[in-house]
Amino acid sequence: MPTCSARRVLLVTAALIASITAPLPADEGMWPINRFPADTVRAKYGFAPSAAWLAHAQRASVRLVSGCSGSFVSPYGLVMTNYHCAVECVEALSSKDSNFSATGFHAPAQGDERQCPGMEINQLTGITDVTTRVAGATAGKEGEQFEAARRAAVASIEGECATTAGVRCDVVSLYHGGKYDLYKYRRFQDVRLVFAPEFAVGFFGGDPDNFMFPRYNLDLAFLRVYDEGRPLASPDYFRWSAAGGAAGDPVFVTGHPGGTSRLYTVAQLEFDRDVTRPQTLLTLSELRGLLIEFQRRGEEQARVSGSMLVIIENALKVYRGQFAALTDPRLIAAKRDEEAALRTAVARDPALAAKYGGSWDAVARVLTAARAQYARHATLGALSQSTLFNNARALVRLPVESAKPNGERLPAYTDAARPALEQALRAETPISKELETLLLSFLLRRVREDLGLDSDAARALLGRRSPDEVAAEAVRGTTLDAAAARVALLTGGQAAVDASTDPMIRLVKAIDAIDRQVRKRYEDEIDAELTRHTAAIAQARFAVHGDRIYPDATFTLRVSYGSIKGWTEGDAMVTPFTTLAGLYDRHSGSPPFNLPARWLDAKPKVKLDTPFNLVADTDIIGGNSGSPLLNRVAEIVGLVFDGNIHAIGGEYWFDAAKNRTVAVDSRGIREALASVYGASRIVGEIDAARQAKAAAAP
Amino acid sequence: MPTCSARRVLLVTAALIASITAPLPADEGMWPINRFPADTVRAKYGFAPSAAWLAHAQRASVRLVSGCSGSFVSPYGLVMTNYHCAVECVEALSSKDSNFSATGFHAPAQGDERQCPGMEINQLTGITDVTTRVAGATAGKEGEQFEAARRAAVASIEGECATTAGVRCDVVSLYHGGKYDLYKYRRFQDVRLVFAPEFAVGFFGGDPDNFMFPRYNLDLAFLRVYDEGRPLASPDYFRWSAAGGAAGDPVFVTGHPGGTSRLYTVAQLEFDRDVTRPQTLLTLSELRGLLIEFQRRGEEQARVSGSMLVIIENALKVYRGQFAALTDPRLIAAKRDEEAALRTAVARDPALAAKYGGSWDAVARVLTAARAQYARHATLGALSQSTLFNNARALVRLPVESAKPNGERLPAYTDAARPALEQALRAETPISKELETLLLSFLLRRVREDLGLDSDAARALLGRRSPDEVAAEAVRGTTLDAAAARVALLTGGQAAVDASTDPMIRLVKAIDAIDRQVRKRYEDEIDAELTRHTAAIAQARFAVHGDRIYPDATFTLRVSYGSIKGWTEGDAMVTPFTTLAGLYDRHSGSPPFNLPARWLDAKPKVKLDTPFNLVADTDIIGGNSGSPLLNRVAEIVGLVFDGNIHAIGGEYWFDAAKNRTVAVDSRGIREALASVYGASRIVGEIDAARQAKAAAAP
Repeated sequence: MPTCSARRVLLVTAALIASITAPLPADEGMWPINRFPADTVRAKYGFAPSAAWLAHAQRASVRLVSGCSGSFVSPYGLVMTNYHCAVECVEALSSKDSNFSATGFHAPAQGDERQCPGMEINQLTGITDVTTRVAGATAGKEGEQFEAARRAAVASIEGECATTAGVRCDVVSLYHGGKYDLYKYRRFQDVRLVFAPEFAVGFFGGDPDNFMFPRYNLDLAFLRVYDEGRPLASPDYFRWSAAGGAAGDPVFVTGHPGGTSRLYTVAQLEFDRDVTRPQTLLTLSELRGLLIEFQRRGEEQARVSGSMLVIIENALKVYRGQFAALTDPRLIAAKRDEEAALRTAVARDPALAAKYGGSWDAVARVLTAARAQYARHATLGALSQSTLFNNARALVRLPVESAKPNGERLPAYTDAARPALEQALRAETPISKELETLLLSFLLRRVREDLGLDSDAARALLGRRSPDEVAAEAVRGTTLDAAAARVALLTGGQAAVDASTDPMIRLVKAIDAIDRQVRKRYEDEIDAELTRHTAAIAQARFAVHGDRIYPDATFTLRVSYGSIKGWTEGDAMVTPFTTLAGLYDRHSGSPPFNLPARWLDAKPKVKLDTPFNLVADTDIIGGNSGSPLLNRVAEIVGLVFDGNIHAIGGEYWFDAAKNRTVAVDSRGIREALASVYGASRIVGEIDAARQAKAAAAP
Repeated sequence: MPTCSARRVLLVTAALIASITAPLPADEGMWPINRFPADTVRAKYGFAPSAAWLAHAQRASVRLVSGCSGSFVSPYGLVMTNYHCAVECVEALSSKDSNFSATGFHAPAQGDERQCPGMEINQLTGITDVTTRVAGATAGKEGEQFEAARRAAVASIEGECATTAGVRCDVVSLYHGGKYDLYKYRRFQDVRLVFAPEFAVGFFGGDPDNFMFPRYNLDLAFLRVYDEGRPLASPDYFRWSAAGGAAGDPVFVTGHPGGTSRLYTVAQLEFDRDVTRPQTLLTLSELRGLLIEFQRRGEEQARVSGSMLVIIENALKVYRGQFAALTDPRLIAAKRDEEAALRTAVARDPALAAKYGGSWDAVARVLTAARAQYARHATLGALSQSTLFNNARALVRLPVESAKPNGERLPAYTDAARPALEQALRAETPISKELETLLLSFLLRRVREDLGLDSDAARALLGRRSPDEVAAEAVRGTTLDAAAARVALLTGGQAAVDASTDPMIRLVKAIDAIDRQVRKRYEDEIDAELTRHTAAIAQARFAVHGDRIYPDATFTLRVSYGSIKGWTEGDAMVTPFTTLAGLYDRHSGSPPFNLPARWLDAKPKVKLDTPFNLVADTDIIGGNSGSPLLNRVAEIVGLVFDGNIHAIGGEYWFDAAKNRTVAVDSRGIREALASVYGASRIVGEIDAARQAKAAAAP
């Protein structure tokens, strides 16, 4: 459970007081790369990344659109990321007879690298402020009109930017609508697996050790980006540090934190506490139980559901930690104080009061309405957790949405979004019908329970049949597990969809009108109104505090800074490094603490005092997984894969005393590759890249 | 989700204003039978139960110690209760080849009635106020001393009263320590199953319909109490109403509501909202998922886990409803107002302020400390959900506790409690090792997750092994699934326990010292201190409001009153009766809405317009299941089996406009017995009893 020291600096005021008062501010903030607070860093550390440093880091950093970060580590498109970011690829490439989760994957030659179905990697090429255009389009509008205008403006800006499938453009709402930036990326859809350790090593310690430290986990994978069938030329890449890091060293993280809620109003925090987190936790807990017992059906079932269980258990730990933060009386008290201070400042200025004074109560009113709508909205939305249902829904909606003007489509169907959607539908990702039956039955049961047996949605999906029957029939009868069947409907358009007798398509059609109506109502009455009022609060905050505040995370490129250091837990000091010797000590022979024979056999060759995992006080959150941990000259000293348990509360605030980033040490990675896996090709590529004098040096 | 009309009368003041102001008070309160508010009832309904009426009702009402209510319905010990209260007996008497869950159970002759393993029924014979003695023993004490003194006083009072195994004596804390009453019972441990319908009929509508209305459920079972091998003579019993009830009729419920929290302070409510309910919900949700998937292993697994799944799904619905009430901003607001009013009244009187003024803050302080201890306490306590572990723990502790003076033992091991414990250990209840393995593995995993892999408790239970391994080994190796093995250890005492190599006994021994220490700390630092301060608040409430307040439910005999009536849901009126025709309409052929062939075949004979289920605005809660619904002359017009969805919030407040009791109509019961089951012996016994002129007429 996150706890916070008395020295915690309130987040809104941190940037403000940074340059004027002692003590020095906490190493807080996930800073957009174009808003990096170099002055603050220089004041504390005596130096700061230059503009060239940042530009280089931008080009060398990538994101995996599945929700992770990564970085180029050679000039040939080699990407370092986490095992858990590549686990779905490992599973997709595996089969009953060739289970890479059990054996690990290692391509001895370039020709052995294998394409990851459906994987997309993005490299940021530019950021443009488009606030005026979006805010101008929505000015004076409310609810449905506001939402329609906002969506049209976004689609139009993105459409103008995304001129080819190789370019991805996202309009990003910062400060909850306070600013809009257009992020432009190179899009890579040919990504291949180069190396992944065994599941037992890439996720050593499993769920029990997740978010814990001391830690012993080789959460590592290498991918390679291909361009027109050949390894991508990536002149900007991060070099390996020869020496590695030491306690006290300043470090940086570049990556793509997925989302935070640090600027939330008190009403928004209470909504999370009372509504969103409990509903999600209950759903995930039951699903976890189903999957654990499903895994006991046999080896094959364990194989096909392994990555899903990892994802669910990770999410459960995150949401439990968030709920703990939300029910920590100190958090709500601190947030109330902070909000009261801002509201008082606004109230004192008649002009501000007139423009923004009513916004906090307006947010609270919108969320009172949301309490009645949330379960329905979330439960129907959750049907997308069934891959087959989700694919069927996309296929049913594509021709309908494509017939509309670009600005009026659902966001997933705009011209800019279409390449990602098509890639997902065309990908040859194996789908387990047995697992899909379990999932769909569960999701349909949730509809019956959360919306009611006699609700229109339950009646449309189930009629008078049970969730088990409907799920079994739809999954058994569908052919959409084969990419060819999906492609046929994708290319056949409306006529093909109309003519389809596929039971999954029929199931989607049965609920689609209700589903769209529920979604539209929530977007118009809740999301749009929230955005309108939180945007006003953002403007109020700028007016009172200036704009040197970092925005909440948005799965866009951010830079965090800090230093390698441990923390104090109760009476005990937690030191910042572990070693490979500790990994062998923790091996018990019993999952999730079991090392494969390869590791046990290699032990005599392994330098056991090699640093293996480490912590730093950089500010990160989920989505930063796979980020490089960089030293002052932008060399890799680690691979970020986790936060400690206190980092989970980072969703809502930053506890400088205890919030820590957890990373694999670069020396541990190299030692494992060389001494355990004999991965000489990768080691050679990294070593050669380190020594090359190229664009890699900032 | 419970909602409350503007007319809701705040609970603390309801009794106060009852006799002086219009409008008439809500039909609120689960009244101890010796504190029944006859004046209030007379003012509203023009009559009230007499002392004789109440004395008769007391003798004709029983409780099932497993957590239900029931009543005598003939002079020969015939007890009417719910199917769901007897479901564990039905399962225990079933086997792979003789599955009474599927077929129902019907004893055509008395000799066919079969003993329910481990079932105990109590009949209340007297209530004595022992407040002076308990309060005297604890006066001036705190924490550990308070707890020890309270426990010694209770054990001593109970021990003096429980002179034979046939007498059960419970000291009951009312008003959270404000008063103590000694409840004396006749104890019956030979209870036999007479009739139970099929699971599909006794739980028609299953979890989806649970807490819902309109409803169509024959949640009925008949048991018979035996005394010295023969049917008990039960001269006080409730007669069947010939006419049944009608909308608007006044009705009464006698029964044993298990617990409510309506007198909680705001800090206690927040503790439930933030800590106890979320932890319980997450645990139950995951267990539900495990069990649903376990059931899919096969018919036999479905059979042995059926009753457990019912219990868990019911509990989940209850706790979800409670959490919804706790997060309803109106509830906390109302409770805050109520508490502020009482505190203001106390603060105004210097004598009261000196004695009680600090109690609310003291409760809040205790609960702040409880936040750090709760997970550990609850998770180790939850190990008792494994029957084998629970039995092993009782066997390990029995000789240790028995060697202590009665007043110093853990409550389950006092002289007064011992007959119940021995019955449980000696009962020939079948235990599924497959299900126990699942359960114990889950409970051990919870220890590892909630307390941490490196906690002393996890280390003691698991060492370096996994929960799956430890559970599988302990369950596979134990012989405690056989009653003979338990009896051997029970009679063999300390020497037998010391010599035992049973792995389940070893597992209990490994954790027992830690378990006892965690429990004792929680009892001394949290429970005792809470009791001390909530008792003071109760005294303050008596001083300000007088003592015409009903205490929170305590699984002791209570009487509720009200009338048969529907309610308004949104724009719709819900009428108070359903019919057997509605049951046939709801039959879809698919569980849980599938009628057995017997019902479908009988349809031409069934009078379809017979009332089947009904609602009344009597105030009940879990534990009232199986209660009779009585008319003004104490005749049975229904069998209580549920509340509507708004009744769940009854844990914390009473919503007179919407909170409803759900019952099976007495006419529907008789029609089903006669026309579907051909249960002529039971129908004959009930009819004869109705016509007999005996002590049954009040």
